[in-house]
Amino acid sequence: MIFIKKVGNQSYILSKPVNIAATASIVGPKEKEGPLHQFFDQCLEDEFWGEKSWEAAESKIVKETVNMAISKSGISSSEIDFCLAGDLLNQCIASSFGLRETNIPFIGLFGACSTFVESMIVGSCFIDGDFANNVVCSASSHFCSAEKQFRFPLELGNQRPPSSQWTVTGAGSTILTKLGTGPFITTFTPGKIVDMGIKDANNMGAAMAGAAEDTLISHFKDTGRSPNYYDAIFTGDLGHIGKDILIDLASSKGYNIKSNYNDCGVLMFDKTKQDTHSGGSGCGCIASVFSGYVYKMLQEKKYKKVLMIATGALMNSTSSQQGESIPGIAHAISVEV
Amino acid sequence: MIFIKKVGNQSYILSKPVNIAATASIVGPKEKEGPLHQFFDQCLEDEFWGEKSWEAAESKIVKETVNMAISKSGISSSEIDFCLAGDLLNQCIASSFGLRETNIPFIGLFGACSTFVESMIVGSCFIDGDFANNVVCSASSHFCSAEKQFRFPLELGNQRPPSSQWTVTGAGSTILTKLGTGPFITTFTPGKIVDMGIKDANNMGAAMAGAAEDTLISHFKDTGRSPNYYDAIFTGDLGHIGKDILIDLASSKGYNIKSNYNDCGVLMFDKTKQDTHSGGSGCGCIASVFSGYVYKMLQEKKYKKVLMIATGALMNSTSSQQGESIPGIAHAISVEV
Repeated sequence: MIFIKKVGNQSYILSKPVNIAATASIVGPKEKEGPLHQFFDQCLEDEFWGEKSWEAAESKIVKETVNMAISKSGISSSEIDFCLAGDLLNQCIASSFGLRETNIPFIGLFGACSTFVESMIVGSCFIDGDFANNVVCSASSHFCSAEKQFRFPLELGNQRPPSSQWTVTGAGSTILTKLGTGPFITTFTPGKIVDMGIKDANNMGAAMAGAAEDTLISHFKDTGRSPNYYDAIFTGDLGHIGKDILIDLASSKGYNIKSNYNDCGVLMFDKTKQDTHSGGSGCGCIASVFSGYVYKMLQEKKYKKVLMIATGALMNSTSSQQGESIPGIAHAISVEV
Repeated sequence: MIFIKKVGNQSYILSKPVNIAATASIVGPKEKEGPLHQFFDQCLEDEFWGEKSWEAAESKIVKETVNMAISKSGISSSEIDFCLAGDLLNQCIASSFGLRETNIPFIGLFGACSTFVESMIVGSCFIDGDFANNVVCSASSHFCSAEKQFRFPLELGNQRPPSSQWTVTGAGSTILTKLGTGPFITTFTPGKIVDMGIKDANNMGAAMAGAAEDTLISHFKDTGRSPNYYDAIFTGDLGHIGKDILIDLASSKGYNIKSNYNDCGVLMFDKTKQDTHSGGSGCGCIASVFSGYVYKMLQEKKYKKVLMIATGALMNSTSSQQGESIPGIAHAISVEV
């Protein structure tokens, strides 16, 4: 075995913490009505933002969020070595169309709703491995383009079961740099694919909870940390049902996360007023909640140590129609000040 | 500017060449009739391989190709730190379903037909950056699942224009390791998104040639190399039309690649006998041609220095229906013995 930066089975401690120089978040009108609205950089008035299609609107959200993050960082885009991005649309077109004018080497990622943390893991490796001084990470989703693609035409006004989640319209973007004063990415645990055998595409939280548990417990075992090492642990996006399942699964393994754990999909909407059933979902949910809310809490030192676990459901509508179960994945990073 | 391993604007020289310990390739029945058939590890008799759907068949091809590569390398799968994979299906399900039982931390990638080289770039960074001793890289495509998804139901028997390419049924997989005797990945040039404004989804070669040119010329300028540094330069997959365009574009910039350049899509099929029009395409094309043909040529030292440039079209069927142009990308790696 040759030296690598791995601890335990699948966690990594960066040789030098990677700085998060800036973040940006833009969300849609429903997110504007939610409890976190004051933390986002921009809340849109409608789902089109002047574009002719929802897909074009999502691309615009990606583009403007990335441009805003770059602008906030004060780094010239010519000094950014890699752009790491992905989204939920088929062939990740929100990212590729939104970012086609950046003129930055582009690494496309797909981890479904885990993409945002996946991008920060790969970005951290590029920086810590001396392949980059600065990288930009991005992930997005859009309620209308996702519903159209994964479920039913919105015009049908289809009913949604109580276990379903509401895809967030929004994007989050971060600028990771070699130098800076923090907050810092210090540790990460990339996830394995975990298939719990769940086939209900309207219960993503249950389908992904097993992957979240696998990564969470691996992270604790690998690093020797316990839940109370962190001021806060966030998943994104298990929703209300998946959140409860994860608490139970962690408890069954001897880890009590009840007091300092929440889910970005739970935080994004007001369940009692917004009719979003099990809560928010989509690559843009944890991306905008981290870039908006969590990052500001870290900057203000209201949180000093945070674990972000992004969860993704690695299926498509064809696999569901063919009766396949839903493989899940979860990637985790620690962010500390 | 802090030291990173970058040369020029966007190329990288690895601090220690990354070893390609093994490769594996499995292709379909049409590829079996092509000129490279003797180089593939396995050629299937039909497009289903005993599965009920083309999507399930593609997942099986991915799974078996990865298992074969791991087996050939002699490395236990528990010693593999990352699995890096992607494909053309919506939400990359060929990879996620095919690899859900590997129990290896999984990083999903999407670069359309550039995914295979993208996976080797990210894998090289993980190894050279001391995040991994061993990684497995994979990319796949399937003629039937791709036609169904991107174009028309196969049952229609639709006509195909002469500029169209034939999606390869196949997968290629490589095992990259920190130690070994080569062939080695020595240099890479990640690509930027380049949109030539071409809207014809039946002329992908033309749409991607500009991205190939951008990465090729950047690679030469950054490294100070000329085309004759390499015994062979391969793109994948511009096809016959895109290949001719790239030769012209390179020539217009003062680089003559005519004598040592070919395209994996051109090599895969016999144009005169196989009715594949402009040649092969799909993530699985360069993946299987590299893993089958090129790697063996390197092992036998028939080639000593090879440049692989994988090209991707970052669109989907919705973007084409909405009248959008086709953004292209190209990622390059040098492989040397």
